[in-house]
Amino acid sequence: MISEAVIKRLPRYYRHIKQLADSGVTRVSSNKIASVLNITASQVRQDLCNFGGFGQQGYGYDVVKLKNELAVILGLDKEYDMIIVGAGNIGRALAGYRGFRDDGFFVKALFDIDPRCSSINGIKVYEMDFLEAYLNQNNVDIAIIATQKDSAKSVADSLINYGVKSIWNFAPVELEVPEGVTVENISMSESLYVLSFRSKNKQ
Amino acid sequence: MISEAVIKRLPRYYRHIKQLADSGVTRVSSNKIASVLNITASQVRQDLCNFGGFGQQGYGYDVVKLKNELAVILGLDKEYDMIIVGAGNIGRALAGYRGFRDDGFFVKALFDIDPRCSSINGIKVYEMDFLEAYLNQNNVDIAIIATQKDSAKSVADSLINYGVKSIWNFAPVELEVPEGVTVENISMSESLYVLSFRSKNKQ
Repeated sequence: MISEAVIKRLPRYYRHIKQLADSGVTRVSSNKIASVLNITASQVRQDLCNFGGFGQQGYGYDVVKLKNELAVILGLDKEYDMIIVGAGNIGRALAGYRGFRDDGFFVKALFDIDPRCSSINGIKVYEMDFLEAYLNQNNVDIAIIATQKDSAKSVADSLINYGVKSIWNFAPVELEVPEGVTVENISMSESLYVLSFRSKNKQ
Repeated sequence: MISEAVIKRLPRYYRHIKQLADSGVTRVSSNKIASVLNITASQVRQDLCNFGGFGQQGYGYDVVKLKNELAVILGLDKEYDMIIVGAGNIGRALAGYRGFRDDGFFVKALFDIDPRCSSINGIKVYEMDFLEAYLNQNNVDIAIIATQKDSAKSVADSLINYGVKSIWNFAPVELEVPEGVTVENISMSESLYVLSFRSKNKQ
């Protein structure tokens, strides 16, 4: 059983190691990783040990090998089909974000109760009524909820009813989901509150 | 010294308690809070004790009082002037996001190396060259970096040079900042990796 804290650090390791690999670095020490990610070197060694990433004394980690190991652990060795529900500011921004594709995440369709454009960045926007039919006919690994707060819960219920197993929630509300369904919340407000908290407590 | 884990939970408490207050709920037990936030009731009691939020046995917490206490702790009892650097998809989405205003965060200006619109949602978009002059003439509590990865570091350096003390970073890169400057990273990719990790390890 991997702790929540480790799970949250994993993506940061991956992103950093990937950046190193992309810039041609072949090996890196736990000290170097630790200083960039602002954690201790012993924490780095312990975390990576959990996942079979073994550094060698005096050599450090093989960057490419570590990157590939982390990618497998994070499930980034496959491709994901995604849909976005809600074509407002957030939904549109997500549809236009190129970073996802580099990691194998592909936005295939958007849904909105009032689709004012037929496509955004080349991705089709459908009426909400078409959601069930779409999910019956297409593979969807991840559904993104980018609706207003008030409709997020009913959208999540529909998605789960129609068989969606992974939800990425951008609406500012805690979603309760049944066993077997994974939800990851990304709350901008929460991040902003952390910033205001830190700013206040520094002064 | 409050632990990172507690700091990260604080905004979730605040958001939940605020929702309760908005819907007219006057008191709530630690068990109720715990079940919604998916943590233990003893954790809730311990966390809130740190901040002077004292529940009464058999009564629970006074929702409005707790909300106000949390708001003060999080620095949400004042208003913040913000600017956004980068008027791409993310910058535009943030400029249009209404949730910030409800919490006292106001986007006053956008900056871009190539401003294709003179304003977005009624907020002026300036050339990057005007950043220094703007920061000299206006109060800016928080600068949001919504640029591409490659320019995020130099933008952060400029902001810090011109006196910005709090940075909210949406670019997918770790920023190193000097003592006295607060940075909060919101990484969509990291959140997505956590989701793919959880999905993979559930199957």
